[in-house]
Amino acid sequence: MNETGGPELTHLDAAGHAHMVDVLSKEKTRRRAVAQCSVSMSEQAASAIANGDVVKGDVLAVARVAGIQAAKRTADLIPLCHPLMIGAVSIEFDLEERSVRIAASVETLERTGVEMEALTACSVAALTIYDMCKSIDKGMTIGELTLLEKTGGKSGTYSRDE
Amino acid sequence: MNETGGPELTHLDAAGHAHMVDVLSKEKTRRRAVAQCSVSMSEQAASAIANGDVVKGDVLAVARVAGIQAAKRTADLIPLCHPLMIGAVSIEFDLEERSVRIAASVETLERTGVEMEALTACSVAALTIYDMCKSIDKGMTIGELTLLEKTGGKSGTYSRDE
Amino acid sequence: MNETGGPELTHLDAAGHAHMVDVLSKEKTRRRAVAQCSVSMSEQAASAIANGDVVKGDVLAVARVAGIQAAKRTADLIPLCHPLMIGAVSIEFDLEERSVRIAASVETLERTGVEMEALTACSVAALTIYDMCKSIDKGMTIGELTLLEKTGGKSGTYSRDE
Amino acid sequence: MNETGGPELTHLDAAGHAHMVDVLSKEKTRRRAVAQCSVSMSEQAASAIANGDVVKGDVLAVARVAGIQAAKRTADLIPLCHPLMIGAVSIEFDLEERSVRIAASVETLERTGVEMEALTACSVAALTIYDMCKSIDKGMTIGELTLLEKTGGKSGTYSRDE
Amino acid sequence: MNETGGPELTHLDAAGHAHMVDVLSKEKTRRRAVAQCSVSMSEQAASAIANGDVVKGDVLAVARVAGIQAAKRTADLIPLCHPLMIGAVSIEFDLEERSVRIAASVETLERTGVEMEALTACSVAALTIYDMCKSIDKGMTIGELTLLEKTGGKSGTYSRDE
Amino acid sequence: MNETGGPELTHLDAAGHAHMVDVLSKEKTRRRAVAQCSVSMSEQAASAIANGDVVKGDVLAVARVAGIQAAKRTADLIPLCHPLMIGAVSIEFDLEERSVRIAASVETLERTGVEMEALTACSVAALTIYDMCKSIDKGMTIGELTLLEKTGGKSGTYSRDE
Repeated sequence: MNETGGPELTHLDAAGHAHMVDVLSKEKTRRRAVAQCSVSMSEQAASAIANGDVVKGDVLAVARVAGIQAAKRTADLIPLCHPLMIGAVSIEFDLEERSVRIAASVETLERTGVEMEALTACSVAALTIYDMCKSIDKGMTIGELTLLEKTGGKSGTYSRDE
Repeated sequence: MNETGGPELTHLDAAGHAHMVDVLSKEKTRRRAVAQCSVSMSEQAASAIANGDVVKGDVLAVARVAGIQAAKRTADLIPLCHPLMIGAVSIEFDLEERSVRIAASVETLERTGVEMEALTACSVAALTIYDMCKSIDKGMTIGELTLLEKTGGKSGTYSRDE
Repeated sequence: MNETGGPELTHLDAAGHAHMVDVLSKEKTRRRAVAQCSVSMSEQAASAIANGDVVKGDVLAVARVAGIQAAKRTADLIPLCHPLMIGAVSIEFDLEERSVRIAASVETLERTGVEMEALTACSVAALTIYDMCKSIDKGMTIGELTLLEKTGGKSGTYSRDE
Repeated sequence: MNETGGPELTHLDAAGHAHMVDVLSKEKTRRRAVAQCSVSMSEQAASAIANGDVVKGDVLAVARVAGIQAAKRTADLIPLCHPLMIGAVSIEFDLEERSVRIAASVETLERTGVEMEALTACSVAALTIYDMCKSIDKGMTIGELTLLEKTGGKSGTYSRDE
Repeated sequence: MNETGGPELTHLDAAGHAHMVDVLSKEKTRRRAVAQCSVSMSEQAASAIANGDVVKGDVLAVARVAGIQAAKRTADLIPLCHPLMIGAVSIEFDLEERSVRIAASVETLERTGVEMEALTACSVAALTIYDMCKSIDKGMTIGELTLLEKTGGKSGTYSRDE
Repeated sequence: MNETGGPELTHLDAAGHAHMVDVLSKEKTRRRAVAQCSVSMSEQAASAIANGDVVKGDVLAVARVAGIQAAKRTADLIPLCHPLMIGAVSIEFDLEERSVRIAASVETLERTGVEMEALTACSVAALTIYDMCKSIDKGMTIGELTLLEKTGGKSGTYSRDE
């Protein structure tokens, strides 16, 4: 709570300046976060991704690698994120008729949660799909990027469905 | 066009393998791309951002810096993107009652377009806002990330409204 | 002590070659370092920074973000620095008539101190201010970059004033 | 000139927000910048650096490599710096009784100057010397970081002595 | 030629210090380099890579992405390498009974050659294969990393077979 | 073991997709890895490296710094490598008549081994030597990159000689 009793932005100090908040008094616990997003595209683009096993493998394989690497660089991209050691990452794709759904799961054993790592992994995997398909369809939309689930840490379990 | 007369994914070679396509025969021309996205949030989170000039300044100022820096790292994040020298970047925010709209504009004088740079800038600016507001609202959604406009280069002008 | 009984440069091995020294037998303890520096400039440049709340906010906000991010990249910049997980960073500015004073504080819970992280944060924040003001004053000087205080670790507390 | 007739911070737009300014209309010309700084230290630290050819070679060799690499990463460290292709870098050291003087020279053939690259190279070389000598002397001061000379570009030659 | 009439290491100046040599007087021409290497492994490891289309696709797809990204980071890894804009990269694998042969081709239109980019791409692709197969075979050897061909630039064409 | 009873590639999940495997249930123990490789070159190149103490110092000093820094960036280069905190790195060179032998030793106190860090350090040190000597000899070969020794962790000690 801040002075006026309202919610507070913990990344800003009392004077409203950005700082990286102190997490050193938090305990190291196993933490997990799952994020998801969706890339909407023309049927033509979706079927180009699906067109043959090898090609499909490669488009999504490249996006998967990009997402995993982005998870590791999260603290380098998001200014006030704490650096942390990721212990596991996996990224799943679900290719539909006019979209690709992406889910990224990240686990760690640290003092802060990994929701930013999961969201960043989803986001960069989606941008990679966009990049690889933009010669066919420039009108793609990346949407619905959300945190699906977060477990571990003092604040307990968060689930979007609740 | 590929062998079967369908559209082709230029990032995949004839065997379906990823490669970075040859752009060296393209001309260096002035190119510009504008991308946009939106961060939907609770009224509480939006008003925390807006709560006082200094605080508002700082949240969006941090997101703006993060977006500009991300534009410069696009080729490092997106595996098959060509490296290029960005000549100008600007990021604008429009704070609404329950969302922040983000628009990123990137310009260059290179052989390839800068749509990935503009999309990446939007995306990382949005993730930064999420990171700074997640202590208030974990249910935020980042959505509607699209290319709004693209000018320059052989393929001519693209505008989402057309 | 080295062979001749003089002080030794621990980053060089017995043959005088650079190596990253072994810190694995040190204990993980809470460690903190504070560094400071100063950017001297013309009155014109200092008043341009101070000219209006929004503008002032933005110059120093950008420098603050740059300094925080640099703290996280210290081991990537300084060859023999150990990588470590930063737990907290804050950067304060004091705008005077012809200078900006910068203080950076970094905390961790690791096997090595964070003086290089604090010094690097100060240094990059100062360079960012230089970059943003150089259109007005090319004659700025960045000076007096020193370690102000260091606590934690086996070597005990260091304070510049002692 | 800005509205009030005073000097302007070109990194801030009309609304006072940070942006990366458009340099695309500038011409590519050969540009050079030289920066310098000084690391003040105890006689003990200075003589440890000088103590034997091999050791001296290594301390300054490591600092030289760090400075050259930092010059290449300038746009990644300083948020509003334009990326550019460096064509030449050299770093010279002058070891005195109680200090090391550092001079860094950077050349390019681009649309913007390389003063930030030269200043960043000096700064990181100095931090590296600090890191390698801090086991002997924690009271070192890095100072007098300035632009010595800048040639090329529309604004003509700048020399600190003028 | 140096003073003693012998060959010279152009990355060292007259005093034997490292510097990044001046390439600004060289012309921008189309340049290409091809490098190759080989990862020797047990039959068991080679057949695990080949075991099923999907799995094979993924191991080599990950290595391909890693190699392409490494090509873009060459100047960040190799201290005296000039930064340059890569225009095309492709990496081919040839899976044999007890080895994987890797060939990387890089093209650019710059003032310096791209042999380091091609060699770095091969090297990181090979390390990625090692990483992905080390649970089966720790005794793999990465060998025969060489420049196969280099075209463009003042020094003319180099071919290993000559 | 996988379904068919053969060895498994732990970096691929049940569906053959790449993921970063979960190491969080492993214990943090002291781990060490030593890797080696060799750069074969003409006598002319080898004697240019050896030609005078200062020059020799600098070539190998630059390669040593490059190798140490590469060890710290391993997880950024190799897509499925876990990030970890390196506790010690040293790189030794053995200059022979027509080759340089490189050995890199890395130690940590983490949940995964550091063989990739040691191999990456060797590899980048070798590439740096190649870069610095290629003006004399383009026909150099980097070979025999292997893991020499690995200790710590559940799988026990590995030694190439066994």
